[in-house]
Amino acid sequence: MTGAECLLRTLLSNGVDLCLANPGTSEMQFVAALDRVEGMRGVLCLFEGVCSGAADGYARMARKPAATLLHLGPGLGNAIANLHNAKKARVPLVNIVGQHATAHLKYDAPLTADIEALASVVSSYVRVVASAEEVGAATADVVSAALKPPGQVATLIAPADFSWSEGGEPAPAVPRPRNPVPSVEAVREAARILCSGELAGLLLSGGALLAPGMEAAGRVSRVTGAQVFMHRYAARYDRGAGRFEATRIPYFPEPAEEALAGLKHLILVETPPPVSFFAYPGRRSCLAPEDCLFHTLASTGQDGTAALDALVQELGAGNAQAPVITQQRPSIARGGALTVEMIGRTLSALLPEGAMISDEMVSSGGPVWEALRASAPHSYMPNSGGAIGQGLPLAVGAALACPEGKAVALQADGSGMYTPQSLWTMGREKLNVVTVIFANRRYRILDIEMRRTGADGFGPRAESLIDIGHPDLNWVKLAEGMGVEAGRAHTADEFARLLGVAMEQRGPWLIEAMLG
Amino acid sequence: MTGAECLLRTLLSNGVDLCLANPGTSEMQFVAALDRVEGMRGVLCLFEGVCSGAADGYARMARKPAATLLHLGPGLGNAIANLHNAKKARVPLVNIVGQHATAHLKYDAPLTADIEALASVVSSYVRVVASAEEVGAATADVVSAALKPPGQVATLIAPADFSWSEGGEPAPAVPRPRNPVPSVEAVREAARILCSGELAGLLLSGGALLAPGMEAAGRVSRVTGAQVFMHRYAARYDRGAGRFEATRIPYFPEPAEEALAGLKHLILVETPPPVSFFAYPGRRSCLAPEDCLFHTLASTGQDGTAALDALVQELGAGNAQAPVITQQRPSIARGGALTVEMIGRTLSALLPEGAMISDEMVSSGGPVWEALRASAPHSYMPNSGGAIGQGLPLAVGAALACPEGKAVALQADGSGMYTPQSLWTMGREKLNVVTVIFANRRYRILDIEMRRTGADGFGPRAESLIDIGHPDLNWVKLAEGMGVEAGRAHTADEFARLLGVAMEQRGPWLIEAMLG
Repeated sequence: MTGAECLLRTLLSNGVDLCLANPGTSEMQFVAALDRVEGMRGVLCLFEGVCSGAADGYARMARKPAATLLHLGPGLGNAIANLHNAKKARVPLVNIVGQHATAHLKYDAPLTADIEALASVVSSYVRVVASAEEVGAATADVVSAALKPPGQVATLIAPADFSWSEGGEPAPAVPRPRNPVPSVEAVREAARILCSGELAGLLLSGGALLAPGMEAAGRVSRVTGAQVFMHRYAARYDRGAGRFEATRIPYFPEPAEEALAGLKHLILVETPPPVSFFAYPGRRSCLAPEDCLFHTLASTGQDGTAALDALVQELGAGNAQAPVITQQRPSIARGGALTVEMIGRTLSALLPEGAMISDEMVSSGGPVWEALRASAPHSYMPNSGGAIGQGLPLAVGAALACPEGKAVALQADGSGMYTPQSLWTMGREKLNVVTVIFANRRYRILDIEMRRTGADGFGPRAESLIDIGHPDLNWVKLAEGMGVEAGRAHTADEFARLLGVAMEQRGPWLIEAMLG
Repeated sequence: MTGAECLLRTLLSNGVDLCLANPGTSEMQFVAALDRVEGMRGVLCLFEGVCSGAADGYARMARKPAATLLHLGPGLGNAIANLHNAKKARVPLVNIVGQHATAHLKYDAPLTADIEALASVVSSYVRVVASAEEVGAATADVVSAALKPPGQVATLIAPADFSWSEGGEPAPAVPRPRNPVPSVEAVREAARILCSGELAGLLLSGGALLAPGMEAAGRVSRVTGAQVFMHRYAARYDRGAGRFEATRIPYFPEPAEEALAGLKHLILVETPPPVSFFAYPGRRSCLAPEDCLFHTLASTGQDGTAALDALVQELGAGNAQAPVITQQRPSIARGGALTVEMIGRTLSALLPEGAMISDEMVSSGGPVWEALRASAPHSYMPNSGGAIGQGLPLAVGAALACPEGKAVALQADGSGMYTPQSLWTMGREKLNVVTVIFANRRYRILDIEMRRTGADGFGPRAESLIDIGHPDLNWVKLAEGMGVEAGRAHTADEFARLLGVAMEQRGPWLIEAMLG
């Protein structure tokens, strides 16, 4: 059996059965093996950033890893931005990178690069296959690393000669590790603080933000009055009607500090203390009050949901009801030029239950987040690492994970241009994704950031680096050029009509929402 | 004066007056400074791979560095593939990457990544600015590294707080180093070998492939009968009518070995010995015969043109005429379904003198290369590092370097999808670029590579990772969606008509050439 086949069989025996691929010569053996071994779905992406972002989206929804298949150093380079996001989202991801045949490396052929160095920046674990015989064991090792709680990007670097050589055997399935449960002491300490009478809050991230953890947090909040906060850059929130809604920490430090003002204690669940996204002249990076004390109920990698459940028991809150959002399906927004608020309202009206929202709205996000609060229950996936170009690939991966559900990519136009190739994969795989492009034709967030960093004013040269009109993008043509149906909405009525069409349809649809 | 302004003024005092930018919050001070200081042209790219590829193309034509401006680790990540190509092309390039404010780094905010580690893989020199006071000196240092012969990718990592703080002064211009001239002994040794009667060849790369070096090599060939070879993955060839044409080493090892067969000596000019692009089962990586001896006339970083001139003198060939290509403008190809050969012929017929060709045709390249041999004199820029997605950005950079000339991007459809955002910058800057998309709707090179690597056959799953139709790309819509005029040609006549339109026009034009 070739090394490539060992690799494939080892992935499959571990339940890794989706491979987001952009292969080249060094990966041909793996590609050929797909037809000899049943069970692996290979999905082609026309750019590697789509592979890595889709693997991230898949993991956020499926709660298990997909594999990538990337071609040498430059292929990995193209995947780095979204691997960075996946690393920050703490999802399991098996990142497979082909390498030149080992004897060829010393010749410094054109494609030779230091793959290990690149991979190390965005991976928690990197293993280079050292022989054809160990391909199976090395693959199992990397899967094991990917599954290490809470989830990691783990990279396997596979030289071509070990892929084409005979010799090894597939490795058996690795045990799926359980997240460790926090100590009884940590739970008691959290309960003591919450009952102390001093102003205390909880900050949740990771798996604790899914429905069971949020419900437990809601019970804690009900019986103690504690405020519950959600990490802004998490992998996924389960929210909407019937769920407990916590406060998402705002983006800019002033409102974030205001949200946390007065807290004497912040109990941390699967997260370190909250920090500002960027630093600004004369401002602190920490967002909590200077005299706030931090207490770790569950560290990153521990089971925050179990910790919250234990806290519920410790507080005797097992029969308490979490305060939950009552569904309020608003009427569809009608009349007049389209605004972000109208998009949010119409989305909330038409959102199907179980929708998977990929949020890369950037400056447009606030009103839509608010509007979706009382919509049908859904999963909401923010940008976790700040690398733009995540939005569309994440929706690809979510749709692959849950083909019966509706993925909704809420995508700013500027950041959408980093990975537009995602649309082609949506078309190829007929993925159930509605994409809404928020077309304001600017890097609008930079209008604000320019002032915040103390840069004094916009001359025409600065303006030319922030304006992304001239020429105007036409996302309808871009989508159609990649095989995805699309339409443009200038008014609330047009948007409502197109969103209705898009939500009804199985398969991809793109709406370019023209903002005034 | 802020650090950002010091940076800008130091670049300008060193003649670096073009900045390919995709800025974010940490780069806002630099952006604002563009309006306070005269002389820097900022060109916005909607994806960082366009910035790095355009800076490479600019350097290949202008023979001096441009600057990039990239946003933190993920922005650098997106630029890596084309920085890799620029490194392999050995061009000067000043790669500027913003960093978080220094005090913010320890908080591991979402965008935090190991920028130095990423940069080191694709840069020959990396410097992190350590204070606001040293911004000018650090910038000069990085420019100096970029100019080090033969040219290097040099990276400056600029923390935001040093950009927004006052304190420093711009640094004065650094001396522009001259490439060292090889020793008299190396020249005499080369002459001795060429006159020994044993079969000897010359292999040229780097600056030696430009017109003066090629002319000298032609004289050497005339008087000694030596075969002259061109490195396949060089930055630029000056070729066409009136120039000496050498043998470009083929891509696959079998024809490459055949081209070099029988050689007892290979005299190297600005290059190591030739190696295969990929390794294949049972084949050597070295392309020259096993008993061939290598002799370095000029090492990488030495002045190969001066070495060839000295060799001409040593051989007493100062009055010899290099054999040159006679211009043969073929008639335009007419009639029938479009083929690669027809494209080559019509291109050769219509190519204006001084055209700058960016070649990323991949499997379609051979016939076009042949067809352009006797066309009007032009510069031809191959993919230097094997990272696809170079073709369109390189044309952007060439057009910025020589706005009066015509840049011609010959672009395979598969690889074109890695950096399609280049088209928008062509539209924004009204760049004089004709793009021809070779639309075969496959990663066709992989059809061949699959067999060569010993992978046994194509099942439907393998096929789905090599076929890039289903859905078909429509490059006319993609181009129009980014503000570039475009048309589609199915026949030779349609291609000839559209190429005539495109060549006549100032500004960008794209032709999607539909190959059967």
